[in-house]
Amino acid sequence: GLANRGAPRWRILQRDWSIRVSVLHRVTPPDSGYAAMSPKITGELLRQLRQAMRNCKYFSEPIQAYIVPSGDAHQSEYIAPCDCRREFICGFNGSAGTAIVTEQHAAMWTDGRYFLQASQQMDNNWTLMKMGLKETPSQEDWLISILPENSKVGVDPWIIAADQWKNMSKALTGAGHSLVAVQDNLIDAVWMERPERPSTQLRALGLDYTGMTWQDKITVLRAKMTERKITWFVATALDEIAWLFNLRGADIEYNPVFFAYAIVGMNTIRLFVDLKRLYDPALRNHLQLDSPSKPELSIHTFPYESVYTELQAICAALSPKDKVWICDKASCALTQVIPKAHRTPIPYTPLCLAKAVKNATEIQGMKMAHIKDAVALCELFAWLEKEIPKGTVTEISAADKAEELRSQQRDFVGLSFPTISSVGPNGAIIHYRPLPETNRTLSMNEVYLIDSGAQYVDGTTDVTRTVHFGTPSAFEKECFTYVLKGHIAVSAAVFPNGTKGHLLDSFARAALWDSGLDYLHGTGHGVGCFLNVHEGPCGISYKTFADEPLEAGMIVSDEPGYYEDGSFGIRIENVVLVIPTKPKYNYRNRGSLTFEPLTLVPIQVKMMNTELLTQKEVRNIQWNYPT
Amino acid sequence: GLANRGAPRWRILQRDWSIRVSVLHRVTPPDSGYAAMSPKITGELLRQLRQAMRNCKYFSEPIQAYIVPSGDAHQSEYIAPCDCRREFICGFNGSAGTAIVTEQHAAMWTDGRYFLQASQQMDNNWTLMKMGLKETPSQEDWLISILPENSKVGVDPWIIAADQWKNMSKALTGAGHSLVAVQDNLIDAVWMERPERPSTQLRALGLDYTGMTWQDKITVLRAKMTERKITWFVATALDEIAWLFNLRGADIEYNPVFFAYAIVGMNTIRLFVDLKRLYDPALRNHLQLDSPSKPELSIHTFPYESVYTELQAICAALSPKDKVWICDKASCALTQVIPKAHRTPIPYTPLCLAKAVKNATEIQGMKMAHIKDAVALCELFAWLEKEIPKGTVTEISAADKAEELRSQQRDFVGLSFPTISSVGPNGAIIHYRPLPETNRTLSMNEVYLIDSGAQYVDGTTDVTRTVHFGTPSAFEKECFTYVLKGHIAVSAAVFPNGTKGHLLDSFARAALWDSGLDYLHGTGHGVGCFLNVHEGPCGISYKTFADEPLEAGMIVSDEPGYYEDGSFGIRIENVVLVIPTKPKYNYRNRGSLTFEPLTLVPIQVKMMNTELLTQKEVRNIQWNYPT
Repeated sequence: GLANRGAPRWRILQRDWSIRVSVLHRVTPPDSGYAAMSPKITGELLRQLRQAMRNCKYFSEPIQAYIVPSGDAHQSEYIAPCDCRREFICGFNGSAGTAIVTEQHAAMWTDGRYFLQASQQMDNNWTLMKMGLKETPSQEDWLISILPENSKVGVDPWIIAADQWKNMSKALTGAGHSLVAVQDNLIDAVWMERPERPSTQLRALGLDYTGMTWQDKITVLRAKMTERKITWFVATALDEIAWLFNLRGADIEYNPVFFAYAIVGMNTIRLFVDLKRLYDPALRNHLQLDSPSKPELSIHTFPYESVYTELQAICAALSPKDKVWICDKASCALTQVIPKAHRTPIPYTPLCLAKAVKNATEIQGMKMAHIKDAVALCELFAWLEKEIPKGTVTEISAADKAEELRSQQRDFVGLSFPTISSVGPNGAIIHYRPLPETNRTLSMNEVYLIDSGAQYVDGTTDVTRTVHFGTPSAFEKECFTYVLKGHIAVSAAVFPNGTKGHLLDSFARAALWDSGLDYLHGTGHGVGCFLNVHEGPCGISYKTFADEPLEAGMIVSDEPGYYEDGSFGIRIENVVLVIPTKPKYNYRNRGSLTFEPLTLVPIQVKMMNTELLTQKEVRNIQWNYPT
Repeated sequence: GLANRGAPRWRILQRDWSIRVSVLHRVTPPDSGYAAMSPKITGELLRQLRQAMRNCKYFSEPIQAYIVPSGDAHQSEYIAPCDCRREFICGFNGSAGTAIVTEQHAAMWTDGRYFLQASQQMDNNWTLMKMGLKETPSQEDWLISILPENSKVGVDPWIIAADQWKNMSKALTGAGHSLVAVQDNLIDAVWMERPERPSTQLRALGLDYTGMTWQDKITVLRAKMTERKITWFVATALDEIAWLFNLRGADIEYNPVFFAYAIVGMNTIRLFVDLKRLYDPALRNHLQLDSPSKPELSIHTFPYESVYTELQAICAALSPKDKVWICDKASCALTQVIPKAHRTPIPYTPLCLAKAVKNATEIQGMKMAHIKDAVALCELFAWLEKEIPKGTVTEISAADKAEELRSQQRDFVGLSFPTISSVGPNGAIIHYRPLPETNRTLSMNEVYLIDSGAQYVDGTTDVTRTVHFGTPSAFEKECFTYVLKGHIAVSAAVFPNGTKGHLLDSFARAALWDSGLDYLHGTGHGVGCFLNVHEGPCGISYKTFADEPLEAGMIVSDEPGYYEDGSFGIRIENVVLVIPTKPKYNYRNRGSLTFEPLTLVPIQVKMMNTELLTQKEVRNIQWNYPT
């Protein structure tokens, strides 16, 4: 869909999976009286923004329209408060949306998940553009229909991806207008109390957590570059940089990353980061900043902001045959620094691909994390069983209890995403998160769905269980059992090496389809190891074709569901590890793969209609959850 | 893959399905001593072609390279002898391949299916470019590496698709060369005994066969055009034109089509066809050429060749808001006549989409055709059972017998593709067709695979059965049963309205995958009604993402297989009709679909290992093939 244009491919994987996408930008904690549902008053802000649009201090000529995408300069899925510019200007704080302001108009495009929320959060200065409806114009068409001839449309080139820029520019140019890069962000210019860019303490991870030194990762990266005759690689994705240097930060909530860029050549390594963060002697030692073992493994550090000028300097010195790798979804600003003849855009960087295949140490860490996580959730369910009859447990307090129990586990760092804790009808809202005004009390009479996860230093978890503390209805059990059958069908699938995850998506749906049911999200996403809970380049979804083949060592989620509007929601999610398997034959020596569940949280037997299960499915459940 | 670039999307569906693709260009009948395996002597031909390349009679300047794609001006899958230009110049007669001739070099690109055949059919003047191997350069890269600076690369713009032209042109321009359109085909210029373009007798189909008059089809087309604000539609695909006017020809073997173009406006209809074909009074009456009922349903006929100048005239008179629909895979020549501002390229034309959904009359016709076809094949199998023990039946004679038996059925027109009749190890060659030098005798000891079909006036058939006339081995039965399980899994699948066929592909493979087996082709293709046996826009394949959703009334094949190299091949193919079904629930009122087999040919029980079948699968077989 349109909403996904410009997102990195693996984000598209996650977007269509789309369970938690609306809950990304939590700035106000849910228990502090979240009042986002009254519209933000934007008249004065818009006046100031329009003044900035006319002000030749920012651009040599007045601009007639200004585009405000969501997102940061790294195309992150979750963003820091200082990057919530679209929310600041229009009030709408959902995860997906683009605002455009002209002299006369202000419009904001978002998709069906957010029509209600956006209409409540935006005041009358704004027109809500409902994406996916036939009558809604695209941003390009709308601009073309309202702009005076020969208009300039401005955008911050750092927060628009190169391919998005290209499409928008082509459409505008075709209609006699032009898309122009405004280097200073005009929202920042009018945002008086804009938060600082976070600069949290960095944590160095040793070999016992990473299984591979950053030096070896650099060496492997360079080997890939040599193989493809690439002389430079520009890393822009925050999780790739964190993975490469075996460092973690806390700059973005739920994501243990830090704001940085890296440029790796065949003999040099440049790291762009707030230099204050590197004063710590232990960190300096980890990065060998003061005594590099070899010159080609010496890291040159630069301020975060100087990536642009440094890349310019590198590009000025390129030889005719030099080629530079950059992700095709990187920012327009950085991409365009590289002369076209030298630029080699790639859908997935070698770091993205390498990071996805976990090594033995990472797998061991993920297993440990899942053991701890299962302990915490078992404690939660035991506590719920005891407390629910008292009528005092709410969606929010259950989520808080889950966090409290997880936080008691060793090496706990924080949650890996905002907990979806939902009872009865709230469970049917796929991207629900409990707010004080929607908070329901858990009871013996309704289905409870909890989708939650944590960051531990040794691994990241993400698990959904659907339980009933009284007696589930026959229909609830029936639906749960179809979902379980789909969950098992994926989990137990045997498939050839080289198979892409999207080919497994229908396995998760067959039992539901047989009864005329379905769910409107993907089935799985890649999971990082003490990194982002959503990562590329693999996944299991009907919507994408651009995922990379599954490989042994990759870790994905398996999470089919069923949602009965106004009544209940069901989802069963495990994190599973891709492992080799040896079936009876081995066609063309391709080898076969299957999944090993990492998640150990029990699945409630009370919710199953065992008559609908085959012998094989029952054996699968008994094997994975021995009683 | 590269071989598919430029093919219409539905051809890509068929290509990866790829079972019969190598057997398309049969010019010499197989029983007349096919000797294509000795290389064609091309020295003199190449000398003449190079002379033409230098001759400014054809292009204003000498050209340094000339590209000879396979294919005709309509992007047909099967082509007429007069269009086999690539075969003529290099000798290689496979279905996929592109030849490029420069002053010094001659090279031909084809894929792995054809490496052996191409190396045998081409002489030393030619370099075989093995596509898919790492060391093989792309056509663009190869040209850039060998051409002198500032070269002109020529191609016939009628047989290169618009998008292919664009890609090639971009690559060449980037390297300082240019791609130029040479209006006269240079192969034709040196092809002394080039066959005439066929102009077979046209057959008008009445309402009892088509279920819809061509006038009504025009009206529906115009309604779609109005809906999308389109003023002109240019039809270039031969099967779409045949379908639109309820006419059939025999210009291309196996495909009841005729060479033509059509341009439909809101008030006019232009048909471009060899005018001699329209002398027949019955045809003139069918098309109402002499007394149109309404002016806007009057067909203006023009010579086939005048489509270019007529389209130019239409485009010269376009109003600023006029938009012209043309398939994005149409020829570069015709596409570029339409000014860019007016051109609306579409992946699937409204005719392609409408043709795919069969009406009640067509479905009834297809059912009748399949009854007749099943009678013929049952007679064949009875005859084989009697004759094989005598040791006199060969792959070729069995294929001939099948054709003879089919030809005795009412309204038989011809075969719908060359019969694949293969015994034992030949069955493992997916795109096999029997030639005198490969012809094996059928025996009691080997598996026999026959994939065949016919054109009847009421419908098109395509069926594969795999049988054994003695005692199959346990392994043969095991593999057959997995294939059967996959075949049933697709055939019995229930899925929501709006589901694309590629989402069903894995169902066909799951049983094979479980045992480490697989097959390297797609699972199904669209089937025309007394039209091409392969048609878009739907199909069932893991390789494509561009198929259109399945709809009730669409007809596709379901044909998983297993191929044990050097030993045997198994494929079970039915043609199936998409029908609505009513499972227990109806999620979001989307409605559900399933398949009804049209093919009635029995499946040999002797080949099944019934222990591997579930109760449900056994019931499915009993239901569809009652004993």
